[in-house]
Amino acid sequence: MTQSTAVELPFRTIGIVGCGLIGCSIAAALRARRFSGRIVGCGRPGENLNVAATRGYIDVAEPDLSTAVADCDLVVVCTPVDLVAETVKRAAAVCSPRAVVTDVGSVKQAICRELESLNPGGAAFIGSHPIAGSEKQGCAHANSEVFLDHVCVLTPDARAPRAAVDRLATFWRFLGMRVVEMTPQAHDRALAQTSHVPHLVAAVLAASIDDENRHLTAGGFQDTTRIASGNPALWSAILLANARETSAGLRQLGDRLLKLADVLDRGDESALIAFLTAAKQNREAARSSASQSATE
Amino acid sequence: MTQSTAVELPFRTIGIVGCGLIGCSIAAALRARRFSGRIVGCGRPGENLNVAATRGYIDVAEPDLSTAVADCDLVVVCTPVDLVAETVKRAAAVCSPRAVVTDVGSVKQAICRELESLNPGGAAFIGSHPIAGSEKQGCAHANSEVFLDHVCVLTPDARAPRAAVDRLATFWRFLGMRVVEMTPQAHDRALAQTSHVPHLVAAVLAASIDDENRHLTAGGFQDTTRIASGNPALWSAILLANARETSAGLRQLGDRLLKLADVLDRGDESALIAFLTAAKQNREAARSSASQSATE
Repeated sequence: MTQSTAVELPFRTIGIVGCGLIGCSIAAALRARRFSGRIVGCGRPGENLNVAATRGYIDVAEPDLSTAVADCDLVVVCTPVDLVAETVKRAAAVCSPRAVVTDVGSVKQAICRELESLNPGGAAFIGSHPIAGSEKQGCAHANSEVFLDHVCVLTPDARAPRAAVDRLATFWRFLGMRVVEMTPQAHDRALAQTSHVPHLVAAVLAASIDDENRHLTAGGFQDTTRIASGNPALWSAILLANARETSAGLRQLGDRLLKLADVLDRGDESALIAFLTAAKQNREAARSSASQSATE
Repeated sequence: MTQSTAVELPFRTIGIVGCGLIGCSIAAALRARRFSGRIVGCGRPGENLNVAATRGYIDVAEPDLSTAVADCDLVVVCTPVDLVAETVKRAAAVCSPRAVVTDVGSVKQAICRELESLNPGGAAFIGSHPIAGSEKQGCAHANSEVFLDHVCVLTPDARAPRAAVDRLATFWRFLGMRVVEMTPQAHDRALAQTSHVPHLVAAVLAASIDDENRHLTAGGFQDTTRIASGNPALWSAILLANARETSAGLRQLGDRLLKLADVLDRGDESALIAFLTAAKQNREAARSSASQSATE
């Protein structure tokens, strides 16, 4: 992380729109890394905004979006995914044409498609997805370290000015992230596999436990189903915004489970060991790949 | 845990056969709870047995099974499940007829069926399954606290002397566990749901990640697939010993995934939110039920 703290951020006033877990974790991370500019927090008056101000994550708490973003050169929209496009439109309409507007949504196609024809000549919108988070919610659980060494995907379209993309990449690197660029389509296909399908599978496992067997679960079950404790409304919006890819992934996984049931039915030990070995290797490879050093 | 430390164990010499993670965690827990008797460790000469002796988990390291169990009044067989029945037979043939022999296997029907006609008039075998553990292996990862507040299932058959069952239950309670009795059939059916199916599902998820998407995984994926890092040979033996129940569970889960795919395909938000909400509630209920205080 030595690199990040030496970087000078190309933004002086950053607006965080939506002061929940991710928005406040961004603000907290900016503080932890000694961002010397101004952070404006925008959200509904209430606990999140109060906690953000009390903890000093934000310099100003401003419930009105137009007022909040007026002086920002970077606006990060951290609302639930189903509110992102509308919020970006409203922000871009009032902020400086030199500003960069981004989001943190876990799906990108639906958002980027709706924002394709945004405000020509005005502020640039470039989609972001910092792949980090928690099943917890709210500013109270903000964590300045949550982005460290994780990947942030940018999904710039062809019209996005290269300079704006580079400035945005510098922002995420400042928070300790590794930045990659993908198309919104490729992002959503990949995330269906690495996040959206696993989320539903964890939920199906959690839902499948009969009441009388609850006390017979242990650490393995708790870990496997942890993400099923995520917020149902937030996740429903994510899953529906990536319904096609996620549904295809679920069907594929269902087929694989049926094939495994066949392996068990015929007592095929060598096939079972080969499968478990490949899964273990793949899991360990994914783990080390996901947590690679950010300075690579 | 105040209760446990006050309990006097009805055993003076305890044999741990198989000094891997669970065997050594039992020995470590006995030490931590100030068991005043003797602990004999039995296993192949090698690192596990050396670590167990060096750390003081066991008083004696004895590679020969007959010598190891000769003076024991409790023998806990902690081998992989496919070696349990044979090891129990050999131990029961040489130890005192007043001794209790048990195991820690994650499946019970196959083991208990093979031991039904064991040694009439000799040492009693009563199956145990302490539902606790780790994806790690070996004495080096032993953890004296791993049993705390978890459930231990006993599967005594009709011939098991009640006094022996009670003594064995006292042993597991001494380690901080909540003891329940079930038939081997009911145990295996329940564990298919709470452990064996989740294990395979975690493995299928881990195996399904394409190489180029590995870096796009995050904490949720890591947690959901953690148990896929378990030892393939150990798990293959467990899954094949409970193949029928596990296979039925996989088919049922596969059906549920297909139904969820339909929900996504038709964009049924209210069904999706209802499902995610039920899963979240069930997950939290399982979590609190599994970690209830042991003194209830």
